[in-house]
Amino acid sequence: MGKPWAAFGVDLHLEPSGAGGLRRGLTDALRDAVRSGRLAPGTRLPSSRTLAADLGIARNTVAEAYGDLVAEGWLTARQGSGTRVAERAVVPPSETAPRHRAPGRPTHNLVPGTPDLASFPRAEWLKAARRALTAAPSQAFGYGDPRGRPELRTALAGYLSRARGVRADPDGILVCSGFSYGLRILGAVLRARGVRTVAVESYGLEFHWNLLTTAGLATRPLPYDELGTDTRELTDAGAVLLTPAHQFPMGTALHPDRRAAVVDWARRTGGLVLEDDYDGEFRYDRQPVGALQGLDPDHVVYLGTASKSLAPGLRLAWMVLPPSLMEECAAAKGRVDNCGVLDQLTLAEFITSGAYDRHVRSARLRYRRRRDALVAALAARAPEVRATGIAAGLHAVLRLPPGTERSVVQAAAWQGLALHGLSFYRHERAAADPLDALVVGYGTPSDHSWAGALEALCRVLP
Amino acid sequence: MGKPWAAFGVDLHLEPSGAGGLRRGLTDALRDAVRSGRLAPGTRLPSSRTLAADLGIARNTVAEAYGDLVAEGWLTARQGSGTRVAERAVVPPSETAPRHRAPGRPTHNLVPGTPDLASFPRAEWLKAARRALTAAPSQAFGYGDPRGRPELRTALAGYLSRARGVRADPDGILVCSGFSYGLRILGAVLRARGVRTVAVESYGLEFHWNLLTTAGLATRPLPYDELGTDTRELTDAGAVLLTPAHQFPMGTALHPDRRAAVVDWARRTGGLVLEDDYDGEFRYDRQPVGALQGLDPDHVVYLGTASKSLAPGLRLAWMVLPPSLMEECAAAKGRVDNCGVLDQLTLAEFITSGAYDRHVRSARLRYRRRRDALVAALAARAPEVRATGIAAGLHAVLRLPPGTERSVVQAAAWQGLALHGLSFYRHERAAADPLDALVVGYGTPSDHSWAGALEALCRVLP
Repeated sequence: MGKPWAAFGVDLHLEPSGAGGLRRGLTDALRDAVRSGRLAPGTRLPSSRTLAADLGIARNTVAEAYGDLVAEGWLTARQGSGTRVAERAVVPPSETAPRHRAPGRPTHNLVPGTPDLASFPRAEWLKAARRALTAAPSQAFGYGDPRGRPELRTALAGYLSRARGVRADPDGILVCSGFSYGLRILGAVLRARGVRTVAVESYGLEFHWNLLTTAGLATRPLPYDELGTDTRELTDAGAVLLTPAHQFPMGTALHPDRRAAVVDWARRTGGLVLEDDYDGEFRYDRQPVGALQGLDPDHVVYLGTASKSLAPGLRLAWMVLPPSLMEECAAAKGRVDNCGVLDQLTLAEFITSGAYDRHVRSARLRYRRRRDALVAALAARAPEVRATGIAAGLHAVLRLPPGTERSVVQAAAWQGLALHGLSFYRHERAAADPLDALVVGYGTPSDHSWAGALEALCRVLP
Repeated sequence: MGKPWAAFGVDLHLEPSGAGGLRRGLTDALRDAVRSGRLAPGTRLPSSRTLAADLGIARNTVAEAYGDLVAEGWLTARQGSGTRVAERAVVPPSETAPRHRAPGRPTHNLVPGTPDLASFPRAEWLKAARRALTAAPSQAFGYGDPRGRPELRTALAGYLSRARGVRADPDGILVCSGFSYGLRILGAVLRARGVRTVAVESYGLEFHWNLLTTAGLATRPLPYDELGTDTRELTDAGAVLLTPAHQFPMGTALHPDRRAAVVDWARRTGGLVLEDDYDGEFRYDRQPVGALQGLDPDHVVYLGTASKSLAPGLRLAWMVLPPSLMEECAAAKGRVDNCGVLDQLTLAEFITSGAYDRHVRSARLRYRRRRDALVAALAARAPEVRATGIAAGLHAVLRLPPGTERSVVQAAAWQGLALHGLSFYRHERAAADPLDALVVGYGTPSDHSWAGALEALCRVLP
């Protein structure tokens, strides 16, 4: 066969000591490499000619060293398959060492925040990757624009305008490696501009609030009532972080009066609205609620992500920024924090080709069915429990009898069901009395484990 | 001269149609390539023998096709310099559309730091992506381990151990979105541990020093002499940032005594060595210099990257950390800053399948030829200019007569040649007298523009 070294590739760092002669030195170095596992069992070695050329020594010396090691049993030589490392009882490092698995990993997971990962559209994504990679200019593989690839910003501008009512221009979009990353950048920029307090919602993710705190900003929770977050008391804040289309986790859409109020406040005071549109694509019972950003692109930052619509592992999100903020945000990000260009180019192609819309539609159908199954199961097995916030998204809030939340969450944990109570999402300084409820992420399980997860949930409900 | 096709590289797919005969088909294909700009003016074509062998046709046919095109004025043939594309007013389609071209963008770029982006192995990468994406467990698409995907950490541990002499365990590797990102994490962790000063080299990248400064650390340059960076004066530093295998940009390998000295210092004081192994794969004249980390994995952080070996656009780099540092570094990174999992899985497959070694090997050959061409051109056209640091890497240092650096860099700029003088890389508090020199990144141009860039360089040399 005589394939060259390059054809199967092993690039091996050998430092043959010259002390006992070249042959001896090479033999020792190779034996060492096998013994230590640096050369894995079965690895095909380069031909003696190639290795000799590489090391600048005589071919015979290499052939003799190989011969020695075959004789010692470290290597095998067979007609037509060259010289290989012998198959021996070497234990390869396992991909996930068992000792790293979290103890007591739950059987079912209904914690919201992750979509059904098994439905990631692998084949379609690969098709898009092939087209994108073939078409990309070589320059795309360089460091690039801190805002992200122009192909993706162009595709996003079109999609967001069409599907979410965002007023977006490719030049005003900044691609980043996730919502949290974007929020961290915004926190730093706001702080540098002199902002001290950011209003947040009574319910949300502590993790997000902490990103603001770390940036040196205080968070102040806004009241929450049946019309959603109350945006009428924003006076002392320099910015407000909201989930207007689908309050996380309560699931309500911000009331039109409250939408108008927050935009009025921003115009009046020069404040900034940070619109977290984490799952705007998933609305079931009526047309999606358009982005707040459409009302005033100069005072609203729109933040979207592929983490819910595709997969968090892509680490792709985007901000649509008011023109006045772009320079500061791009500088705070810098090109070294860019996301991988291949995924950016692929997502651009995925959107442009229509595959994104197809995927979202099919995912919407899947999640809607799960929601319907959840509602039906509750009606049949836990009629006391009322599901709210179910017109959209990947999770529901199940209202529990007062005082029962904690025991239900504990019972779930005992049953191997990962689940959060609503208190997990409540800001520590939220004004209203705590509500007993569960936040059920029905998007998280795979299709085949969803029925089991729902069954486990029903068993722990009062 | 008869250099092979690969030396001029021309990433050119010729598909001579057989319709009007082979000679006619080849003539048409070549004319097309020149007309469209795919073959740039001045590009040297392969010898008729080489091209004939490449295409599997008779040498005479190629010679006749060349003759036809010389007669038509598309090519020129001169004794001793082979057949070249005629210098004409052909405007090649730029990789980025003209409206995106920055004003005054130079025609040639010899600034180091970016490899030849046109040689990114698109087809091989796509193959690996297909295999990786098909094999990946669904869970891989989730938020994941802050250290990065286990598949990639396992592949890297094997590769780094085999090819760079790094002592690596998958559990001790942290994948991050670039060397700079890793350095920023390390800066934050060192500062939190109470370190105040990091020793750096007299020559390096200000950008890196600034990352440390931003983390609240002072940088102090170490002396530099003919044995490389002097690591004997490290007393008051808590850490040292080094490029031991190939000093950037001077190009020397750290002297064995200095390697020993820095490891001794680290052991004695508990200091940390940050080993920037940015282009360790590319050594031409002898075996690569093994990683310093191999000498003491408990006191050396090894930092590697795909930015030079593949492309910066991947935003993939890795740190091999002493066990005592992993927890702090992983916490400082957090899972939201993970790199996209698809690229991580693909790189793992790319390494495991041997494609990475093959690619590195072919790139090494490409860059070595460029280096040889550079050295030959200097000997012929600028015998006063001495090239140093040329045993490895993607750049060379050209020593200039005292006092001429600035005027040469300016002359280059006037000629549309982007180029840095050595002073660009000198730490502002470096002790030794400034040296006049150019740092020439011969890895940066694409194959088809390399000849032109070299010609432009020769024109501005004294």
